[in-house]
Amino acid sequence: MRELELIEALERRLAGAGGRVVRTLGDDAAVVRADRYAVTSVDAMVEGVHFRSDQLTPEEIGHRALAAAASDLAAMGARPGEAYLVLGLPSGFEVEHAVAVVDGAGELADAVGITIAGGDVTRAPALTVSFTVVGWARDAGELVGRDGARPGDQVAVTGTLGAAGAGLALLEGRAGSGLDGQAAALLRQRYARPWPRLQEGRELAERGASAMIDLSDGLATDAAHLARRSGLRLELRLSALPLAPGVVEVARELDVDPAAFAVTAGEDYELCVCLPGRSASQLSNMTWIGSVKKGPPGVVFADATSPLAGYEHSL
Amino acid sequence: MRELELIEALERRLAGAGGRVVRTLGDDAAVVRADRYAVTSVDAMVEGVHFRSDQLTPEEIGHRALAAAASDLAAMGARPGEAYLVLGLPSGFEVEHAVAVVDGAGELADAVGITIAGGDVTRAPALTVSFTVVGWARDAGELVGRDGARPGDQVAVTGTLGAAGAGLALLEGRAGSGLDGQAAALLRQRYARPWPRLQEGRELAERGASAMIDLSDGLATDAAHLARRSGLRLELRLSALPLAPGVVEVARELDVDPAAFAVTAGEDYELCVCLPGRSASQLSNMTWIGSVKKGPPGVVFADATSPLAGYEHSL
Repeated sequence: MRELELIEALERRLAGAGGRVVRTLGDDAAVVRADRYAVTSVDAMVEGVHFRSDQLTPEEIGHRALAAAASDLAAMGARPGEAYLVLGLPSGFEVEHAVAVVDGAGELADAVGITIAGGDVTRAPALTVSFTVVGWARDAGELVGRDGARPGDQVAVTGTLGAAGAGLALLEGRAGSGLDGQAAALLRQRYARPWPRLQEGRELAERGASAMIDLSDGLATDAAHLARRSGLRLELRLSALPLAPGVVEVARELDVDPAAFAVTAGEDYELCVCLPGRSASQLSNMTWIGSVKKGPPGVVFADATSPLAGYEHSL
Repeated sequence: MRELELIEALERRLAGAGGRVVRTLGDDAAVVRADRYAVTSVDAMVEGVHFRSDQLTPEEIGHRALAAAASDLAAMGARPGEAYLVLGLPSGFEVEHAVAVVDGAGELADAVGITIAGGDVTRAPALTVSFTVVGWARDAGELVGRDGARPGDQVAVTGTLGAAGAGLALLEGRAGSGLDGQAAALLRQRYARPWPRLQEGRELAERGASAMIDLSDGLATDAAHLARRSGLRLELRLSALPLAPGVVEVARELDVDPAAFAVTAGEDYELCVCLPGRSASQLSNMTWIGSVKKGPPGVVFADATSPLAGYEHSL
């Protein structure tokens, strides 16, 4: 690795001072004008664990790592702020590819209003892209945790489900023979370039969301986190799930129930939110998939038939 | 890896809400009450690149990773705030050892007033300990960059130099035959558990430090960063350097000049600071090693003889 060349290329792509950023390149640490509450999350993606370089372009790897981290800010309803990158590069890794990883993240950052304000480049045995993301809020009450759901709340998700899992199945050649090219490309795109729902997260927070989480591990697992933290039961309907176009076909090729596939496949990075009924009635662009009940904490799919009959994500 | 067991053990060691920390465990992101300016740095340590597990205990690995990151806050004169950990564990890594890594970092965090407020655990091909540290300041003017040195400033360092490099030489069995056990143990300790100079950094900032940097790569390299960013020349005296006890003996065994060894060995994590003469005269516990001059940016060791004769860290 031509390290100096790389660092210079990366520095050109990192933002200089401007906006909230007072100091960044060339100092020991970045200095940023803060709002009253800092919202911070860290997320690492490691080659061979979270992705494979032969399935994604370097730009997609960078995009995806930042998207996964930023999605946590979305789930809190925080305003996006800064990101800090730790880039671990195996020896022999091309400078051009390393720059492309940063470019992919940088394009997403620009699109969603995040400033990449600092970073560290190191050798590592496998390509590692780790982001710390910081969001801001004027008031802690603007933010939404996982613990605030109330009995009677309605449960919704943004977007469509199962797309990233189906996209990965296509990439791995496990499915896809029955899909037309455009549908396959869209699914692949959902896996390769997930979109953090930052705007939706803030809107949902403003409209009174009581609890929220992003779907990184799949609805079955992530909704169960909400249920556990809120001490309540989420009764969801598989028949109500907004499956992404092509998911039914891919699931059938894989010989699994499409809805079961969609709730257990991860990395859609959609939001699952609980809202009081009066707020819920004002929201469009969401799919209502169930409600919050008193009862032993957990998720029940009320209408599940085989293979999810009696499925319950127990805690 | 028994992942759930590990995560539970780590969560017990992470701080819950309290102090500035409003939300931490169990949510998508940590929420922290901010001061006006956030000072943020990221630093990754990878097994086989930055340390070897057969030379350090897991506790030392955790301590050292946090110390290196926190040292950047010290060099800015920031008040310590929070740390966020990404822990990458190879398959088969013992849960007890992973917990010990976090314990080592946690003890240092407690000692210097840092709260470990969040983290991510992942599989990785080599043990990876990556910290994002956040410090706070009420005013951007309280903070010290690398760019503020002025002609006539005096240059000083905290503590003693060369200890970490000598400690590593001992660990690698390249030297040490002539040292008594206590001196050897102290050098090894300086390598294994460096101490971030957070308190000294704040005091130096309050007393009018014009530029500051922490010594991670060695004085020759790090002082050159100061010189370049300030656009000035640092004239330093090798004879004035505060060599740590035992460094002379280790350097002679390695057949290198002790002062040359001390300015090129890294990881001491002391501070190098520039101060106006009037402030300098009020400070004790520092070693004055030179002054700032107009001239082509760089570092000159004015009294260097072989092997540093004519040594100049050119830019």
